Amino acid sequence: MSGQAISSPWKKAPDRRSERNLKQEAVLAAAARVFAERGYHRASLDEVAQILNVTKPTLYYYFKNKEAMLFACIQHGLDTLEAAGEAMPDAEETTGLDRLVAYLKRYAGINETDFGRCAVRISDAELSDTSRKKVRRVKTEIDRKLRELISNGIADGSIAPSDPKITAFALAGALNSIGHWHQRDTELAGQKMIEEYIALLVNGLAPRRK
Amino acid sequence: MSGQAISSPWKKAPDRRSERNLKQEAVLAAAARVFAERGYHRASLDEVAQILNVTKPTLYYYFKNKEAMLFACIQHGLDTLEAAGEAMPDAEETTGLDRLVAYLKRYAGINETDFGRCAVRISDAELSDTSRKKVRRVKTEIDRKLRELISNGIADGSIAPSDPKITAFALAGALNSIGHWHQRDTELAGQKMIEEYIALLVNGLAPRRK
Repeated sequence: MSGQAISSPWKKAPDRRSERNLKQEAVLAAAARVFAERGYHRASLDEVAQILNVTKPTLYYYFKNKEAMLFACIQHGLDTLEAAGEAMPDAEETTGLDRLVAYLKRYAGINETDFGRCAVRISDAELSDTSRKKVRRVKTEIDRKLRELISNGIADGSIAPSDPKITAFALAGALNSIGHWHQRDTELAGQKMIEEYIALLVNGLAPRRK
Repeated sequence: MSGQAISSPWKKAPDRRSERNLKQEAVLAAAARVFAERGYHRASLDEVAQILNVTKPTLYYYFKNKEAMLFACIQHGLDTLEAAGEAMPDAEETTGLDRLVAYLKRYAGINETDFGRCAVRISDAELSDTSRKKVRRVKTEIDRKLRELISNGIADGSIAPSDPKITAFALAGALNSIGHWHQRDTELAGQKMIEEYIALLVNGLAPRRK
């Protein structure tokens, strides 16, 4: 036997795992794009496969079925929204309103991504009962964070008194609409839209006296 | 032959027509309730039939299929929203902001009804291409009215300057969320919720100086 190293066409186990992860992420990103554009029922896995230059059966190697893909997309969008709330700087020099606005801007930006649009545009009624329960748990957590930020701002006087529960609903509703409109009106997407939304929510429709 | 009037078990043609209309409206109201609660795909026509104490085949006498029912429900919801805009008083003594707020209140109230919830909660991606085009036309009309009210308010100085297109999206997004949350959180429904939403949209999160 020669001492020369034989280059195996099979990859080492850890490489295989990370390659599998990369591929699964690519499938997920393509699925999110198609779900966000077409909605759940009109989304075709053929289109997902086409984006990735693979055949449809290849997709099933990464996800059991279409519903599992949808669940993973919604879950990923919601996890990102939740993480945006957890990563908030809590510096003492900022007001509660500043911290809320920083969160709302991140939230709005996520709603412009494919995953955010999936989470917002596709009803969780499409999911199985088990998946829906998981998704609702994350939604509850996001809602809790939003209420907490509002309550803290009311407490330090930087936010006008209101029912934090209703205000959280109204803010989330307004920002979720970014995920709804985004596709139909791409010219409006991006920073300008987010800034106009935030200005409306912070300052209201009525002009302020200087 | 006796001159006594014979009471026919068949109704006169005009009565038959109006009875048919009444029944069709009842089918529509029951369908709207079920679609709003369950979403389109989970909605069962058995449940619609049960609400009306009829058998499922009876429903097909009034609507060709489930999609036709959904279309009629969404259309009805949107028509009501559009009519609310047309019926706006245009008195000269009111400001543009007053007129916008009056419209937003009606809009919010409609979003709490079953038809409004259908229009808001169920994606028009569920509809056939023809139906979707019709629905989009009414949505465009509603959007146009909202932008017009905002522009008029900006023109008379009662509304702070903004891009009316984006502001209309943000307002509609916030108010549409009433239709989304309504079911899950019934304690929040009603006048208090609408008033808090309007206060946020008119005055903003930041406190106003007295």
